[in-house]
Amino acid sequence: MSDFPNPAPFALSDSARDELIAVVGRDHVLVTEDERDTYRDPYWFKDDRSYDSSAVVFPGDVDELQAVVRIANDHEIPIWTSSQGRNNGYGGPSARVAGSVLVSLRRMNKILEINTELAYAVVEPGVRWLDLYDALHELGDELLLSVPDIGWGSVIGNSLDNGMTYLPLGADFAAPCGLEVVLADGSLLRTGMGAIPDNPSWHIYKRGLGPVLDPLFMQSNYGIVTRMGVWLMRRPRAYTPLYLSIPRENQLGQAIDIIRELRLDGVIRGVPNIQNLITMGTQFPEHMGMFPGADATWSEDRLDALADDTGIGRWGVRTALWGDPDVLRLQVARIREDWAQIEGSRVDDLGTFTSENWGELSSFMEKISAGVPSLDMMEQMPDWVGHVGFSPIVPLTGRQVVEVVEQIKARVIEQTGANFVCAIFPTNDRSAMIVSAMSFDKNNEAHVKATFDTVRQLIVELGEQGYGEYRAHLDVMDLASDQYSFGDHAYRRFTEAIKDAVDPKGILSPGRHGVWPAKYREK
Amino acid sequence: MSDFPNPAPFALSDSARDELIAVVGRDHVLVTEDERDTYRDPYWFKDDRSYDSSAVVFPGDVDELQAVVRIANDHEIPIWTSSQGRNNGYGGPSARVAGSVLVSLRRMNKILEINTELAYAVVEPGVRWLDLYDALHELGDELLLSVPDIGWGSVIGNSLDNGMTYLPLGADFAAPCGLEVVLADGSLLRTGMGAIPDNPSWHIYKRGLGPVLDPLFMQSNYGIVTRMGVWLMRRPRAYTPLYLSIPRENQLGQAIDIIRELRLDGVIRGVPNIQNLITMGTQFPEHMGMFPGADATWSEDRLDALADDTGIGRWGVRTALWGDPDVLRLQVARIREDWAQIEGSRVDDLGTFTSENWGELSSFMEKISAGVPSLDMMEQMPDWVGHVGFSPIVPLTGRQVVEVVEQIKARVIEQTGANFVCAIFPTNDRSAMIVSAMSFDKNNEAHVKATFDTVRQLIVELGEQGYGEYRAHLDVMDLASDQYSFGDHAYRRFTEAIKDAVDPKGILSPGRHGVWPAKYREK
Repeated sequence: MSDFPNPAPFALSDSARDELIAVVGRDHVLVTEDERDTYRDPYWFKDDRSYDSSAVVFPGDVDELQAVVRIANDHEIPIWTSSQGRNNGYGGPSARVAGSVLVSLRRMNKILEINTELAYAVVEPGVRWLDLYDALHELGDELLLSVPDIGWGSVIGNSLDNGMTYLPLGADFAAPCGLEVVLADGSLLRTGMGAIPDNPSWHIYKRGLGPVLDPLFMQSNYGIVTRMGVWLMRRPRAYTPLYLSIPRENQLGQAIDIIRELRLDGVIRGVPNIQNLITMGTQFPEHMGMFPGADATWSEDRLDALADDTGIGRWGVRTALWGDPDVLRLQVARIREDWAQIEGSRVDDLGTFTSENWGELSSFMEKISAGVPSLDMMEQMPDWVGHVGFSPIVPLTGRQVVEVVEQIKARVIEQTGANFVCAIFPTNDRSAMIVSAMSFDKNNEAHVKATFDTVRQLIVELGEQGYGEYRAHLDVMDLASDQYSFGDHAYRRFTEAIKDAVDPKGILSPGRHGVWPAKYREK
Repeated sequence: MSDFPNPAPFALSDSARDELIAVVGRDHVLVTEDERDTYRDPYWFKDDRSYDSSAVVFPGDVDELQAVVRIANDHEIPIWTSSQGRNNGYGGPSARVAGSVLVSLRRMNKILEINTELAYAVVEPGVRWLDLYDALHELGDELLLSVPDIGWGSVIGNSLDNGMTYLPLGADFAAPCGLEVVLADGSLLRTGMGAIPDNPSWHIYKRGLGPVLDPLFMQSNYGIVTRMGVWLMRRPRAYTPLYLSIPRENQLGQAIDIIRELRLDGVIRGVPNIQNLITMGTQFPEHMGMFPGADATWSEDRLDALADDTGIGRWGVRTALWGDPDVLRLQVARIREDWAQIEGSRVDDLGTFTSENWGELSSFMEKISAGVPSLDMMEQMPDWVGHVGFSPIVPLTGRQVVEVVEQIKARVIEQTGANFVCAIFPTNDRSAMIVSAMSFDKNNEAHVKATFDTVRQLIVELGEQGYGEYRAHLDVMDLASDQYSFGDHAYRRFTEAIKDAVDPKGILSPGRHGVWPAKYREK
């Protein structure tokens, strides 16, 4: 691995802490260890304090945030920002540099606009999927929000980390549009058309005049996003959620190829969620609880039997159709016809919902593709289970997806003894994220270590084959970033040059996804 | 207006010129005035030499281009790069700084890959729409390319300038994916997943790990793109081009609102091209030649009569449907039903094309939405007519589109005496580019001046109302950029900071879209 910085923990001075408290008030700063422990990723070995913070600050508005950033700039305090802090499985709200001041934007939670004519909303970072959904529900469910599996995250935070959502606007970059950003010097930047005062196209056109900046603030440490447009879907005349089963492990490749062609043909417009039995089981209320977290590897025979008994299959696909009712009927028929190539498979039509029966959406699968977020999946997680995500990007061909899935599966079973937990998300027509959420027993230091070691080994092994992660856990960010090495790390050097130019004191989230400011690199 | 640089013309030394010649060969440099005049925008007052170059260099491959950039860096020579140099109406290949060395990438014209399984191609900058189409045609027309009206431009150049194309992949950013870039120091950068050596997802996943750079190279001067992925569409089972007429001027707003809802509902998936009579007439072979360029303003009565006589309407919409034949039939019916709200309007179904009769595509309108590029529109342009584009972004509501169209129309007619030439492109579901190609008589200095003065006036007038251009002519780039003034020009200052960091000597296209390097700003 390259020689990444390994900074000593930062120590916040009492006087700087008092300056921060003066800005936001003592009620809005977590100071003591007990207080700070309420704002960290829950998925660590319980005694590990290596990513501890020195304080957590909750500014109430943009002015307060700007004041916090200016104090950080004056004292060269590393600050690590999160919107809701729910990046669990990737390090939560914790900072790469121990002792950083965490800045949480949970209090900046205003929905600034809902434009029903043009179908978009504008939110602050503290707005959760649950909150925006509630506001849209109040307006009569005429506009749908593309939501992730768990609704407690920030719309902005989740989007900027490239999180997955499932409606057609869940495709790469489709929903977010137009940012306001607090820069390292405390000044405000508006991107795209927002750079023109009072521009009505800020949140509806993704470019501007000159270089396009929005994507530069995704997974980045160049600024703190305080406002974002998010595109919404007009509720269609009809909505039909579908469940597609894949009875046996060796049919996964065939299924992937069929899904790719259905996407390329415009039949499947949303982001399908393809999960293996262990994962998908959590979404069938009648079976949940049957599926363990980290305590055992079940045999292939047992899994096959369970796949048949439950009807879930060894893999399954959550997807949906949105459109005019007569078009949907034809599209369901097309999907049935194509899916029938998979021996023994099933297509479950979970019903058709219109404005007439929208209120009857009830199961997780019915709700998720209709843009109704929940905490259902969280509530099933036993208290002792943690997980870390390992998430490479792979071309959407059956051959390549299976090749990578098999490698991850073998390592997980061999080295952690846990069941293999895997979901595949084709966020566009040509590639997929393979998300393996590796479960571990938080109370067992050796098991936690074995799991993180497995992640590290997979990053290198798959990196050598040309596969890279879409998002990396705090603990492996440098290693994951190190795989992006073309041209003597040209990408990293370019991102470092920008970092040094826009944040010369290196205060904003140093080390995020491998981008370290000069002051750390030179040590 | 802000205080933009006004640099003196650059003078290329003989020795530097000889170094450039030594790299590419004398045959690949335009040196004399006659030679150089073959590589400039044809649309200028004929005696105007204010954007003259000192030489035009045609590198043959990436190595030669890197050598050219290194020479420019050594001697601090401003170089202005174009792929094909067909940015006509916006300055063509000419440079913002007079006397710059123009770099043309026309010789770098290899199609590097066509991936039929995942439906994408990878091209060098010299590859034209016509070339890539030819290659796909050779492969049996199984993959369709989203093309612009005129096929001679570079796929890369046109995409990086945010040019319009019409298939579903013509939406904002949809087609381009994954870049290779020569930086100012001559080194190579690969973006996205391309930063991992041998990554098979370079051209199929739009992000990476860490900040996303692709859009930073659109309309920018941060590097020279030498390779780009471009997504293709699987040929659908059926394709139906449509023409929708709008009989009267006062029905435009109503039509815009219907189109927005059809887009939001996923019925219209491509980019419709909404043109007024004068413009649309050029696409009906039986009427072309009837429409003048710059010599007269026709009365409303005459235009109404012509709209009726030709059947074109005062405005018309080119669009198309792609999908399964039975779905298309339902969608045509839906469009007919919605469009019938416009009194006296017509929906022309131009036929249904499948693999059986694909070879029968013949008219411009049949071909353009099937991804078959041509030079048809160029061939109708009288020799004496030039044009300059004025192109603001406007929310896709009938009210706002009409408000802006009316303002532009009034100014054009009042101040230039030409007919109003206008096209409206909803490149996404929520906003549109209004492209007014203002025609002028190239031989008439006063008319050229009046036209450019009108553009300048409109930039300021509409800028004050919050509307900005999506792309600006060389002659008005600074003024157009100046409207993006929020936060004491925070956007410009941020883009300048990046410019200075990644191109410290300021050699790459200084002044492009208002981004000037430090050496010019400080003078």
